[in-house]
Formats: sequence, structure tokens, C-alpha cells
Amino acid sequence: MNFTEIRHHLHRHPELSGQEKNTAAFIVEKLRETGVETILYPFAGHSVIAVIEGKQAGPAVLFRCDIDALPIQETATHDYISENPGVMHACGHDGHATIMLRFAEMLIQSPPESGSVLLLFQASEENGSGAGQVLKSGVPVKYQISQVFALHNIPGFSQNQVICRNGPFTAAVESLQISLTGKTSHASEPEKGISPALAVSDIIRHFETLNQNDKSQPDYFIGTPIHINMGTEAFGTAAGNAVAGYTFRAWYNTLFAQKKSEIEKSIRTIVRKTEGLDVKFAWTEPFSSCENNADAVRHVISAAENCGLSHFEKQEPFSWGEDFGLFTNEYPGALFGLGAGSNVPALHNPDYDFPDGLIETGARMFFAIAAEIGI
Amino acid sequence: MNFTEIRHHLHRHPELSGQEKNTAAFIVEKLRETGVETILYPFAGHSVIAVIEGKQAGPAVLFRCDIDALPIQETATHDYISENPGVMHACGHDGHATIMLRFAEMLIQSPPESGSVLLLFQASEENGSGAGQVLKSGVPVKYQISQVFALHNIPGFSQNQVICRNGPFTAAVESLQISLTGKTSHASEPEKGISPALAVSDIIRHFETLNQNDKSQPDYFIGTPIHINMGTEAFGTAAGNAVAGYTFRAWYNTLFAQKKSEIEKSIRTIVRKTEGLDVKFAWTEPFSSCENNADAVRHVISAAENCGLSHFEKQEPFSWGEDFGLFTNEYPGALFGLGAGSNVPALHNPDYDFPDGLIETGARMFFAIAAEIGI
Repeated sequence: MNFTEIRHHLHRHPELSGQEKNTAAFIVEKLRETGVETILYPFAGHSVIAVIEGKQAGPAVLFRCDIDALPIQETATHDYISENPGVMHACGHDGHATIMLRFAEMLIQSPPESGSVLLLFQASEENGSGAGQVLKSGVPVKYQISQVFALHNIPGFSQNQVICRNGPFTAAVESLQISLTGKTSHASEPEKGISPALAVSDIIRHFETLNQNDKSQPDYFIGTPIHINMGTEAFGTAAGNAVAGYTFRAWYNTLFAQKKSEIEKSIRTIVRKTEGLDVKFAWTEPFSSCENNADAVRHVISAAENCGLSHFEKQEPFSWGEDFGLFTNEYPGALFGLGAGSNVPALHNPDYDFPDGLIETGARMFFAIAAEIGI
Repeated sequence: MNFTEIRHHLHRHPELSGQEKNTAAFIVEKLRETGVETILYPFAGHSVIAVIEGKQAGPAVLFRCDIDALPIQETATHDYISENPGVMHACGHDGHATIMLRFAEMLIQSPPESGSVLLLFQASEENGSGAGQVLKSGVPVKYQISQVFALHNIPGFSQNQVICRNGPFTAAVESLQISLTGKTSHASEPEKGISPALAVSDIIRHFETLNQNDKSQPDYFIGTPIHINMGTEAFGTAAGNAVAGYTFRAWYNTLFAQKKSEIEKSIRTIVRKTEGLDVKFAWTEPFSSCENNADAVRHVISAAENCGLSHFEKQEPFSWGEDFGLFTNEYPGALFGLGAGSNVPALHNPDYDFPDGLIETGARMFFAIAAEIGI
């Protein structure tokens, strides 16, 4: 099976979160060609699980990749660019899925001695909804999963380098829409309206004071201003409502939960200063911090050494969110990085292209981790 | 000539500022039917001037009405509602134009003894551009205008009551777009971007401190927040730019000019606090304060008394803008109000309808003012 071609096929046909129908069907087809017999699909939206049983009963380990693409117009010029306008694999999930297919082939060729391996091709990672759907499906419980592993390709690190750390690997991230409802008025009579402007000013100022920008500290917490829409562009009418959007992130889920409730309380206090102004909160796109388990990280490092790969212990977590954090909330496990090279575009850039050289490395890492665990 | 029908025709066929082609053509047609010989048209966009010469040479007096409509969907149910979807005469300019046509008829029937009367049907009042175009045309200078008069229908006052005052009658009003340009970044790395958020917060706060809300004082000055658009609703991207729109008003043009230059200076100081943030200012829709001349106001009051109309000296100016202020900047003159009734919708409301009873009153007032001046 030509895995470079498989990766290029996926790159050519990217699908957005929640719409991965053809991607999932293609993966199922390739799993069947590889010889996998137990495939759960359709499952938790467009996710796919391949189950590979060992010769004897034993613990189940879940390896997870993601399969969705992003709403970005590709600008690269290679011969397998996206055929879906405005959508592209700019985060390398095409590569993650291909690694998992190669891993399936390895497992079929050398089946586990005992226990079983679950290969999860997870849909809807980018919008933070896929992992939750898989966990709610009951499948992980049914198969008595004991550990969970995943990897992410990471530009800015030497190609094939394994990046890992104990504790938080990626940030807890969640976004908040604050909707302020007052009352418009003729611009010449603002005293007859209820303007959200002062509350907007105070909210911006408040979040600034809340920031603890030092990424080396465990209490790192930042709120990033994303957008504000207040009033409409008609100079005869004073603004009567506003929506402010912020994204927050912290290293630890517990700190994040505590800040969330503090935020709502503080904003209510600010809003009360404008009589008649109403506020509503909508939290959206939640990503749990991916807190790595120390034993699982040891398996990752041993696997890297067994594969002859350099490994790097990152001092600080990555500040992006990964919905694999929901898995590490429930099961011991680890998310690790695989360096994608130093001189490549950043993730989510319109010319990013997953390096095909990582396919074999990623699959070997997963296989070595399974061996470490004794599956 | 049936002036109620004329008013209803205009109400049925409203046209936005700068698009008053059919309205102007209809006015020209009616002026011709009335017997007016000298008509300047097309003139300063879609404005029309009718010139009615007296028997002997003498000073020229300009009477002005406006003819444009508003981008408002009419909700009234009478049988002459707007046939132009989304556009309506919600400010009574249909009535103002009809008053002027009736005034033309009166002047044709009783021509001035000496001097001349210019009847200006002015386009583009609502966006503040029409008066300036007329003044720049050179016509007022050519005709050696000595005085200028205009009226506005005003709901909230008894029908036919004349409202006037010395000094400012309407506010100086002008709007400002403040464009802040920084740099977007991934939301997880706001330190790599340049956020306009803190500047937006400080700008809102600054304008609040600048306000002097007491309308009874000569230094009345307020900035009304109209809209803010910052960033885009994509939680992965930190805001990198913002546009804030404010409308300012004061009673006096001199104070307004002084505040304008102070505002730009203060905003620049605020913006400099965010390194790399750039600011651009765009002032738009300027309305000069309409500062009434004491002699002209005396003529208005005598005219009201001669017409047997009650008159009311308003303690404070109106806080809306009227581009007739550009005329009173150049010539002695007065803008006065004509009460449209107490229990009627406010101007710019989607169910406002100019009271036909004011047509005759308005024309008689103009005729009486001309008589007072001795034309």
C-alpha cells in the first residue's frame, strides 16, 4: 500500500469538521484493504474505530488521530492541492490519518500478543466537538480502555524529533461571547437610550488586568480579544447593543474552571454600572488541557529511544487547544509532538503541507508504544 | 392647484439624498404650471431654484426647503404610502417642498414690489452635502442674497405653532470614523500581534470624560458612540484592527471646531500607548450649527403674529443637525420650526406623516416674512 499516495488523496479531498463523510468512507475502504476485520462505522458522527484484537485477552489501548480539515483557501502549488475550494488540510490531519492507516497495516502484519488496540480516526477535532462525541458513545468503556495515545505534527522542530512533557501538553482553551443588550436611541438623544459602550470599555480593561502572561508559570492565564461588534454603521443611531468575543487559555483545567466562574461574576458587576443593560454569556469551542500522565510519557520516551529518534522535553505547554484533552481527563495517556521541520510554514497557514517523511516515523512510534505497554 | 395631492404624490415617490431626479423634475413641472419663468435646473446635483423677480430692483431673499427622503421602510397604512421600497419621507421634506410650491403660487399671484425671491428646493439635506453644493455653485453670490430663511416641521409641538430662538437653533453635528490598524495573530500567541483592544477601551472612556451633557449651557458637547467593529468572529484569531464610529454635537460652531482638533490629538496620545498601532481619522456628514440672526428672528416672530399663529421661544437649541447651518454661516437668516402636533410619531419614525394642514401655514409664514422684509 502506498501511504504517500493515501496522504495526497486525503490532502486533495479535505472536509470540514462534521462533514468528513467521504474521508471516513475512504479510511474504512483502506482499513478493509489492509485486512482489518472489526470496524465501527458510522460512529459518533463521521469517526471510525478499527479494533485489532491480540492473540490473548488483555488490556485495550486506544491510539487516536484526527481527520478533519480547516476553512482555509490553500495557496500551495504542489500537484495534490485541495480540490475543495476554501477548505484545506492546514493542520496535517491528512498525515495523522495516514500514520494511523500505516500503523493498522503494521498491526495486521504483527498482531498484538495480548490485549487489543483501538485505532480511532476522530472527526471534528478543530471545533472541539469530536472527542466528546466519541467518549459519550460508550465505546471506550465497552472496550475497557486502559491508556490513550495521540500525536501531533509540529512545525518549528527538527523533522522526526519527538516532543513530550509531563503534565499539561496543550492549553485549556474556551471562548466566550458576551452579549450586551441595551436600547438604541436617536444619536442626538443618547440619554433616551441605554448604551453598552462604557461596559465594553470596562470589559476590555478588566480582561487585561486578569492576564498572567508568563507561560513558564503554572498560573498562566490569558484572555485574547477576538472581536467586538457594537451598534451599526448609521450615524443617526446611538449604539444599543454589543457582542464581545474573547478566547481564554490556561495550563490547568482546574484553574480554568475557577477563572470561568470569576469572569461571569466580574462582568455582571461591570454591566450593573449601566442601568438597564442586560448581559448574556455563551461559552463555546471548549478544549480541555491535555494533561499527560507520567507513566504514559515514559512509554513515549522509551519508544522514541527504541526507534532511534531524538526526544525533547518541552519546558512549557503549547498554548493551542487539542480536544484529545478530553481523553486524558478520563484515561491515563499522552499526547506527543512529532517535529515537522524547522523551515516550514506554521500550522493553519495556507501553504502548510504535512511532510510525508513523518508517516513511517509516526506509525513506528505508535507501534513501539504498543510494544512498550506489552500489547 | 391641489397642494394636498402634490404632497401625497411626493410622499408616494420618495428618493434618497443624491438621487432626487424624479422629485426635482416633478417640482420643475409644478413650478412651470404655477407660472414661474426663471428656473435653475439641473443645479448643484438635483436641487432646483425658482427665481421670482419683483417689479423694481432690490435685495434678494432666499427661502429654502429640502426634498430628499430617508432609507426607512414605511409602516403607515394610508393610501399614499411610499412606492419605493425601503425609502420614505419620514422627515416631512415632502411637506417642506409642497409649502414652497404653494409659496411660489402666492408670489406669482402677488409679485414682490421690489427685489427678488429665490425659492430653493434643496437636494441632499439628510447626508449634509446639499447646502454646501448650492453655496459652492456661486448662485447665491450672483443673486446678491441678503437674507436666508427655512422652516422645519416639528412633532411634539402644537400644530401650526411657530418655534424659534436667537442664536443656535440646531446643533453642530459631525461624525468621526476612527480606524485602528494593528496586526492579527493566532489567538494563542497574542504577543505576536498588535491588538487595538486597549485603545478601543481608552477611546470609549476618553469620550465619556469629554461630554458636557447639560443642554442649557453654551458649552454643551457630547460624543455619542455609534458603532465599533473590532476583529472578526473567528476564535482562532486575535483582533488586529478596529473601527470606532462616534457622532459629536455642540451648540456653537467655534466650540465644535476647537473640540475636533483636541479629539484627534487625544486619540493619537491614546493610540501611541500600543506600540505599532496605527490610527486614521475620517470626519463625515458635517452639519454646521444653524445660528439664527436676531433681526431675522424678529421677522419670523412678526410674521407669526401677522398670521395669527402662536409662537414659542425655545430655551435650548434642538440637538439634531440641519445643513441649513451652512447658509446661516454665510448670510443673516433664520431657521424656524412649525409644530406638527403633540400626538404624532417622531421624525424619522417609520409611520411619520407630514400633516397636510401645515402646507398653507408654512406658505403663509414665508409670504409674511417676505412682506416683513419689504420685498
